[in-house]
Amino acid sequence: MITDEIKEKIRKIVGPSHAIDSVVECFGYSYDSSFVSMSQENIPELVVRPGTTEEVANVMTIANEYGIPVTPRGTASGRTGGSIPVKSGISLSLERMKSIVELDEGNMMITVEAGVRTFDVYNFCAEKGLFYPPDPASWKYSTIGGNVGENAGGMRAVKYGVTSNYVMGLEVVKADGSVIHTGGKAIKNVTGYNLTQLFTGSEGTLGIITKVLLRLIPMPKARNTMQLMFPSLDAACNTIHRMLIAGVVPAAAELMDKISIQAVARHRNLDIHSAIEACIILEIDGESNVDLEKQAKQIQIIAHELQVSEVRIAASQQEVDEIWSIRRGLSSAIGAMAPNRFGEDISVPRDAFPKAVRHIQEISKKYDLTIAVYGHAGDGNIHPSVLCDLSQPEEDKKVHQAIDEIFDVALALGGTLSGEHGIGITKRSYIAKALGDEGVNTLKMIKQALDPKGILNPGKIW
Amino acid sequence: MITDEIKEKIRKIVGPSHAIDSVVECFGYSYDSSFVSMSQENIPELVVRPGTTEEVANVMTIANEYGIPVTPRGTASGRTGGSIPVKSGISLSLERMKSIVELDEGNMMITVEAGVRTFDVYNFCAEKGLFYPPDPASWKYSTIGGNVGENAGGMRAVKYGVTSNYVMGLEVVKADGSVIHTGGKAIKNVTGYNLTQLFTGSEGTLGIITKVLLRLIPMPKARNTMQLMFPSLDAACNTIHRMLIAGVVPAAAELMDKISIQAVARHRNLDIHSAIEACIILEIDGESNVDLEKQAKQIQIIAHELQVSEVRIAASQQEVDEIWSIRRGLSSAIGAMAPNRFGEDISVPRDAFPKAVRHIQEISKKYDLTIAVYGHAGDGNIHPSVLCDLSQPEEDKKVHQAIDEIFDVALALGGTLSGEHGIGITKRSYIAKALGDEGVNTLKMIKQALDPKGILNPGKIW
Repeated sequence: MITDEIKEKIRKIVGPSHAIDSVVECFGYSYDSSFVSMSQENIPELVVRPGTTEEVANVMTIANEYGIPVTPRGTASGRTGGSIPVKSGISLSLERMKSIVELDEGNMMITVEAGVRTFDVYNFCAEKGLFYPPDPASWKYSTIGGNVGENAGGMRAVKYGVTSNYVMGLEVVKADGSVIHTGGKAIKNVTGYNLTQLFTGSEGTLGIITKVLLRLIPMPKARNTMQLMFPSLDAACNTIHRMLIAGVVPAAAELMDKISIQAVARHRNLDIHSAIEACIILEIDGESNVDLEKQAKQIQIIAHELQVSEVRIAASQQEVDEIWSIRRGLSSAIGAMAPNRFGEDISVPRDAFPKAVRHIQEISKKYDLTIAVYGHAGDGNIHPSVLCDLSQPEEDKKVHQAIDEIFDVALALGGTLSGEHGIGITKRSYIAKALGDEGVNTLKMIKQALDPKGILNPGKIW
Repeated sequence: MITDEIKEKIRKIVGPSHAIDSVVECFGYSYDSSFVSMSQENIPELVVRPGTTEEVANVMTIANEYGIPVTPRGTASGRTGGSIPVKSGISLSLERMKSIVELDEGNMMITVEAGVRTFDVYNFCAEKGLFYPPDPASWKYSTIGGNVGENAGGMRAVKYGVTSNYVMGLEVVKADGSVIHTGGKAIKNVTGYNLTQLFTGSEGTLGIITKVLLRLIPMPKARNTMQLMFPSLDAACNTIHRMLIAGVVPAAAELMDKISIQAVARHRNLDIHSAIEACIILEIDGESNVDLEKQAKQIQIIAHELQVSEVRIAASQQEVDEIWSIRRGLSSAIGAMAPNRFGEDISVPRDAFPKAVRHIQEISKKYDLTIAVYGHAGDGNIHPSVLCDLSQPEEDKKVHQAIDEIFDVALALGGTLSGEHGIGITKRSYIAKALGDEGVNTLKMIKQALDPKGILNPGKIW
């Protein structure tokens, strides 16, 4: 319970208009982009929107003193409930901290506040010929702070890695309000424990990330898109696998199963032959068009060895956009297929991708549930979407049994519960299965050390 | 004090021949490859050489029960005293755990025990066309466990990164003897905190690393070496900087100043013109010889714009070996210049490299000390060697003042104390300067959480 006296103290720090307690306004901070149902219980008592690191620190000092839960929030584009204030208290929104602090072209690094949108960082750098590769599906509205908190992935991970591969340093406000700076611009840095990577992906449970130092790379000079249709899922998976083994690494390698393809076809009035069982969309990039042609040729040779049905190499930007719009339209096309949908995010060793998809197809049959499968085949990250109608009796139970089995498949194949969405609320009950009791204990020890009162994003991860 | 009763318990675990307490044998475990003087106080009471993870776990359970200090040890090739048992107790040597557990060619990953030599991992993978890039100078005798513990770097870091960039997962025995497995073969993995990166570079203070899962990449198909001589240090640094900005990224980019060059010249009877102020050695690699020629041409154009004095492109493997032998002979050539030598390992933002070297030259003048400078210019990691004669009065004080100032230079330029050697004993007193009191407190909180009795590698980092 946040008393009026405490609210007054917080208003003095951030200004009265940035510490909001009207239920109507607070309601907007009670949900995110996950499949977690809205609930009165998740409405924060107070929404606080600090404008500076100092304000964040001062708010945290008060929250720690009074033991008030604090749930940090970017733009709530998360898929696992990470920014939902399940213990109410304060929703700490970083939305006002959206400055690009410094672009250091010499060292190819950028410093930004946590509230800057990922797409804005990408564009700002692209104008200078520099490339910030991580592109989570939400990148047009998600923030860098959120991306770092969840260690967001994206399509380009197969070649360029995920958010954590670009985080060089952080400014973090700890639970007690103290501020630390981790990492820095030195590329090699072994001074002390790697706190930068400890906070990255910690889902707001260890500290509030206020500033981020990101490394950049030169923007590739040429890019193109290819679309490959296959008569079998294995052929599609094997094509990607052989490409990577041969050292032909595309910037993105997206795979869709038949259900996904047909969903898009219906949604967008496309005519795709019913014998097509899988589709791959590739982004290739390099130093020149000659370079791209060489890659495309190598890919075609491998695909033809594996009986590809159709290869399309984009001949114009329009065609590039057309091909990618199929992939980008996927989520809504699948969502339109049923009243309810649970989107998962398992990740397996790359060569286990086809096996995982086959197991998911068996689970689909066993429970008589439509499960669309697509994902980042180049890095083993699969998004199975379980489609259902929760108004039907027993449907909820059946869906959750199916999801349980999907997680079991991921773990049995040496994979994990989440590739890029985090654990949040939705996967809490599975984490001990993935990490073992001793693994979870180790996480709890670290949490206890850095946030002894347990005020930072309580109710998440375990 | 380890009683006979405790020794007996440990001998039952590892076998009598692997729990040694003779002073003569224990003496060999009291020092490493750093500049830390040998001392009676650093002789361990007991050298324990477990053969399995289970044995490590059982030994740790006993050590934790009795509060016995445990200092893990690979082959003691560290440069900052990390494996020196400064609180005596147990020297826990991983030398017997040297199995290559699994090479997973499909996923391009290898699992090895901690005691495997880095060079053996490299060769084992190379035979299969796979590449494990990290190449610390010590790689012929250092172990993977040690490399992970210190987050070792090397020459190839400029293009391929350091050890941590290849660590996908770990098996760790914690202070209390519990065993955890972190990470895994899934490329994208956001299940729980990034313990893999927390343990990597933790210098044996948080747990004993027993197994390591490393990712590999395809072996580049072509490689060559170039040597460039410059009339000024700035021209050499700027050549590297412009190359990288232009997207020409060599596998290695090593720089030597005049003192270093002349030391090698004297040591190896080479004739190098006195007007040469700096030398760069580059390794370039790629998909074909045509690819290499293209890179070499781009590098030459940039170097000539910056008044390079001489460009040599190796025409045979013999010439490659000849050029690299200059760089490899550097440390002993410099060591031969004076009775004593302190080698440092600062790291600065890449574009601050020339400024850092100039400051070091000023420090050299100010204290009338010869300081040879060489380093991994491509990634900002500088190894200044302060040459001295400690038998001279006041020399020790002067040397340490000079080193203090070198650290100040690194920090003032936004860099750090150590790029690849770790903090260990030798840089302990400087860490608060680098991380701030609150940063060091954060490290201590984590240490306290995971090793409440403080038995793991005590006396290191802070």
